Amino acid sequence: MPAPRYALRPLPLTAVTIDDAFWNPRLQTNREVTLPAQYAMCRDTGRIAAMAGTWQPGQPQEPHIFWDSDVGKWVEAACHSLATHPDAAFRQQVDDLVGLIAAQQQPDGYLNSHYTLVEPQNRWTNLRDCHELYCAGHLIEAAVAHFQATGDRRLLDVMCRYADYIGQVFGRGPNQRRGYCGHEEIELALIKLHQVTGETRYLELATYFVDERGREPFYFDIEASERRSRGLGEVFPGVWAHGYAYGQAHRPLREQSEVAGHAVRAFYIYSAMVDVAALTGDAGLLAACHRLWRDVTERKMYVTGAVGPSAHNEGFTSAYDLPNESAYAETCANIALLFFAHRLLQVDGDSRYADVMERLLYNGTISGVSLDGTRFFYTNPLASAGAVERQDWFGCACCPPNLARLLASLGSYAYSASERRLWVHLYLGGQARFAMGSTAVLLEQRTDYPWSGRIDLAIDLPVPRAFDLMLRLPGWCHRHRLQVNGESQEAPIVKGYLKVHRRWQAGDRVRLVLDMPVERVAAHPRVIANAGRLALQRGPVVYCLEQIDNQAPVRSLAIADADKVQPRWAGDLLGGVMVLHGAALAEPEEAWSGSLYRSGRPDRCQRVPFVAVPYATWNNRGPGEMAVWVRRA
Amino acid sequence: MPAPRYALRPLPLTAVTIDDAFWNPRLQTNREVTLPAQYAMCRDTGRIAAMAGTWQPGQPQEPHIFWDSDVGKWVEAACHSLATHPDAAFRQQVDDLVGLIAAQQQPDGYLNSHYTLVEPQNRWTNLRDCHELYCAGHLIEAAVAHFQATGDRRLLDVMCRYADYIGQVFGRGPNQRRGYCGHEEIELALIKLHQVTGETRYLELATYFVDERGREPFYFDIEASERRSRGLGEVFPGVWAHGYAYGQAHRPLREQSEVAGHAVRAFYIYSAMVDVAALTGDAGLLAACHRLWRDVTERKMYVTGAVGPSAHNEGFTSAYDLPNESAYAETCANIALLFFAHRLLQVDGDSRYADVMERLLYNGTISGVSLDGTRFFYTNPLASAGAVERQDWFGCACCPPNLARLLASLGSYAYSASERRLWVHLYLGGQARFAMGSTAVLLEQRTDYPWSGRIDLAIDLPVPRAFDLMLRLPGWCHRHRLQVNGESQEAPIVKGYLKVHRRWQAGDRVRLVLDMPVERVAAHPRVIANAGRLALQRGPVVYCLEQIDNQAPVRSLAIADADKVQPRWAGDLLGGVMVLHGAALAEPEEAWSGSLYRSGRPDRCQRVPFVAVPYATWNNRGPGEMAVWVRRA
Repeated sequence: MPAPRYALRPLPLTAVTIDDAFWNPRLQTNREVTLPAQYAMCRDTGRIAAMAGTWQPGQPQEPHIFWDSDVGKWVEAACHSLATHPDAAFRQQVDDLVGLIAAQQQPDGYLNSHYTLVEPQNRWTNLRDCHELYCAGHLIEAAVAHFQATGDRRLLDVMCRYADYIGQVFGRGPNQRRGYCGHEEIELALIKLHQVTGETRYLELATYFVDERGREPFYFDIEASERRSRGLGEVFPGVWAHGYAYGQAHRPLREQSEVAGHAVRAFYIYSAMVDVAALTGDAGLLAACHRLWRDVTERKMYVTGAVGPSAHNEGFTSAYDLPNESAYAETCANIALLFFAHRLLQVDGDSRYADVMERLLYNGTISGVSLDGTRFFYTNPLASAGAVERQDWFGCACCPPNLARLLASLGSYAYSASERRLWVHLYLGGQARFAMGSTAVLLEQRTDYPWSGRIDLAIDLPVPRAFDLMLRLPGWCHRHRLQVNGESQEAPIVKGYLKVHRRWQAGDRVRLVLDMPVERVAAHPRVIANAGRLALQRGPVVYCLEQIDNQAPVRSLAIADADKVQPRWAGDLLGGVMVLHGAALAEPEEAWSGSLYRSGRPDRCQRVPFVAVPYATWNNRGPGEMAVWVRRA
Repeated sequence: MPAPRYALRPLPLTAVTIDDAFWNPRLQTNREVTLPAQYAMCRDTGRIAAMAGTWQPGQPQEPHIFWDSDVGKWVEAACHSLATHPDAAFRQQVDDLVGLIAAQQQPDGYLNSHYTLVEPQNRWTNLRDCHELYCAGHLIEAAVAHFQATGDRRLLDVMCRYADYIGQVFGRGPNQRRGYCGHEEIELALIKLHQVTGETRYLELATYFVDERGREPFYFDIEASERRSRGLGEVFPGVWAHGYAYGQAHRPLREQSEVAGHAVRAFYIYSAMVDVAALTGDAGLLAACHRLWRDVTERKMYVTGAVGPSAHNEGFTSAYDLPNESAYAETCANIALLFFAHRLLQVDGDSRYADVMERLLYNGTISGVSLDGTRFFYTNPLASAGAVERQDWFGCACCPPNLARLLASLGSYAYSASERRLWVHLYLGGQARFAMGSTAVLLEQRTDYPWSGRIDLAIDLPVPRAFDLMLRLPGWCHRHRLQVNGESQEAPIVKGYLKVHRRWQAGDRVRLVLDMPVERVAAHPRVIANAGRLALQRGPVVYCLEQIDNQAPVRSLAIADADKVQPRWAGDLLGGVMVLHGAALAEPEEAWSGSLYRSGRPDRCQRVPFVAVPYATWNNRGPGEMAVWVRRA
């Protein structure tokens, strides 16, 4: 087995232009509504004042341990946006904030508004609970995005200094602490810092954090004992009651096989594990990533791609435990799984990773934001009795800016390249620019995806050049047709991609048509919540039934195997969506008045029409009942 | 509408002898195994040392705020046992413990091991969270049971002194605190103290606690503000985050219509509300009890009678939210609902209350203890993927002794009398002694209930006497036959009871035969967890499928409407139970290897035999999958 490495490299954000009927309104809303609204929230809640260092003890809005991460994620999102959509006023706002962050840095490089302003004496006393390195990670990611978008090294230099200081404090040398953060994040951020600066020491520090985690004696115990001897109390004893596995620190990461604990933490560290494995050639570490991938995708993932069923630990329970109504399925966790999938994709070049990315992009991630860009789901249940609604913001506000940065960087997930191949992972209109050897190539996509399975590709390049165009055959697709310059063509399938080899010339056109019937999806019988139920899916889009579209209560409906379900374009609905409709059987509720249980013959069901809408668009028309999984009649 | 009062009075524990094939082994195990084992647990965990006052600061096993209640419940259970089964050694053990409790009493009457030993300066500073009056309530109940069983007034006098002191501290007078306990319990205990002593002041104090609860300004806020001004920290801020409704203190009790908050607290206070309404003629308070009864039984009760679906608040959520696998359904809450039902039954004489009592007795309460009497469920889920098991004991050990006192006092729930009527609420073999006017009557029951619906009653009395024998027609029964002295007879039905009027003579015999077919129970369509599912019930017994009895995974089974389900006596199984068996369709799992979701034609189901056992007996043969609600094929 060859040593792990990245077999392919994503095309950078700036190489991809998106011009797509499905995504354009979402991305525009993200830029023009969501990002400004989130800035205002950061300002109004005191997060920016905390960054500015103006808060003083006794004042309200005491800087919280999380806050730097919110600001970091917002800056990162804003910079991704600037990378593709320059805007002078917006740039000024970002740069002002960068100035505040820089000014907050302490002489030794340390940078954390909570600890600096609220409890300077307690720096590094509670890595387990207090998100200190997590905040550093998000500020590093912001710095990388800022540099990539603007070329300005200011924030990058600040964060390099902070990372260098962290590298002095933590490690296995004499006078170093063998610590790691309770909430992983800094590991993947250090990889990015390594990639953008070329400095090996950041990769080494990330590798140390990955490698040290879960070793005995447990650092969290050592640290807790030190707190006790200093007379420091425990800040979040209830959180720590979840134990080592809550932060994936129950055993060394390379020995782990089951996704466990807090789901966001899990996928942030698994993502960093892939990077470390690829960049250091660590086959054992990559094998752990593969085991964890199989565990989550074969046993612990919702049909929307969402992960982490339990509110109790914001994370994982046992295999096949996927309750719908109580699903936690945190937006951040779903985004984090996408990060993990995207990294494995670059290593293995296998479409199953892109399939999960796509499942998340069209379902379990964008469900987190309203179509108007102002309201957010922290949790993404797959059924609701009617009380669930998106919120403007959260005290723990990790999800809204996480989604903003994902949307603002969407283009970077669409394509990858290697020396002689270009992979199309996502079907979305727009252009990609890349080089094959010395030849600059422009690939244009036009499609009505995800509503239509027809994708038209046009290639422009100055001189003819041979390379493989690798077109993903989505896992949901059972029949496809391929044409090159109007003629049908067969192509071999390599790891789930159609390999279209050709000496490409300017004006070459490729058409891929993916059959996109309505599918009735069943869950593995061990998923007790979905026994006897089906989910409707068409292409990558998972559907749900919302009460507003249906006369009979959604909970009462069942769909017979023999009844057809048909798509119908609804241009006026939810910004334009394909709905699904058909006949269902409804169990009448009238006869139940006053009784909760009843024996004897069941009531005769009534035949009623039903309408299903894309899951990600639910709760855009007020609260109400919703269900993804419907009974089979 | 006449003022509320008790229309009937339960026959006391000592008037009822149980001699019954179903109950005898359970009650014997309770006396001979469970009570001694629980005493040993109280001793080994430091609870008895705490009562003895020997604990000193710095030692392990610091007396916990709950502990007096555990000891109180154990003494109460032991005294119920002594009332029906005198035992000199056991009596000595109880009396020794009574001596310890009495010695613990402070000069002013106060009695609480935690506050006296651990933080004497903080008495009455945190009624909201610290169970101080709750512990008092359980010690009062113990004292009443001790007096009733032994005639010894020692503990009763101690607890009267404590209650008198509590009555000085709390109330609406000058220099009194307008407080009430965060965990209700003292209210129903004070009613018992009133009933056994005849002292009106205990009824008045209970009435005050019931009446004051939920008034504004909220006492819990006043108290919290006092703590802050004294510099006292919050002990359980996470618990208080549930808010006023957690302890039913969000509005005055008489205005409440929806069961809410912590389920044990809820039914303890609702029980006291019935008592206060009946004893003070308070129609408005009784109306609230009726509203709350309807809310729980029509919208929020499991088919096992269990209540309180959520672990989050150990209590209630929204109407029809009755998940099976995550059901909290605490044993104590189920017992507390039984208390509420029993009290409403005495006021209204309506069989629907006895129906719920019966549902609880055969299902959701006794599920809480293993057949060998040594292991306990705190929560009683209606489905398990295999990880759930009973435990020996709990840090918060409320449930085991609660169940012990229920079982030891079972006889007191079986019958009621009024001036001219004798009600038979529960069908169980044994004898009841009561007086009709000046005539002593002996009623003997023989039955194989709940496995058979045939009940034989024999009456003995010295002189003929006319009265109504009121025989409950269970809600589950759709056909019955009645014979008096061998001859068929019709009888009018009054509030769910067959009213058999006669001038009874010695040797009169009554036979009631209740048809007991296997029933397929459906839940209201709004119970999403049970849509398309059925539960099997026969007589009052709710069944479940355990993995150990079934070849195909329990989760994969579905039962067709057309397939018969039959009872079969299994004398060697689980101490002798009627099992149900039939054919089911099993969804094969083999073809799913490695996939979590799949579209296309469902697999063909296989026809397999299935066996169901009484729900209350599950997990007596090791852990494994279990389901009460099975899919309809």
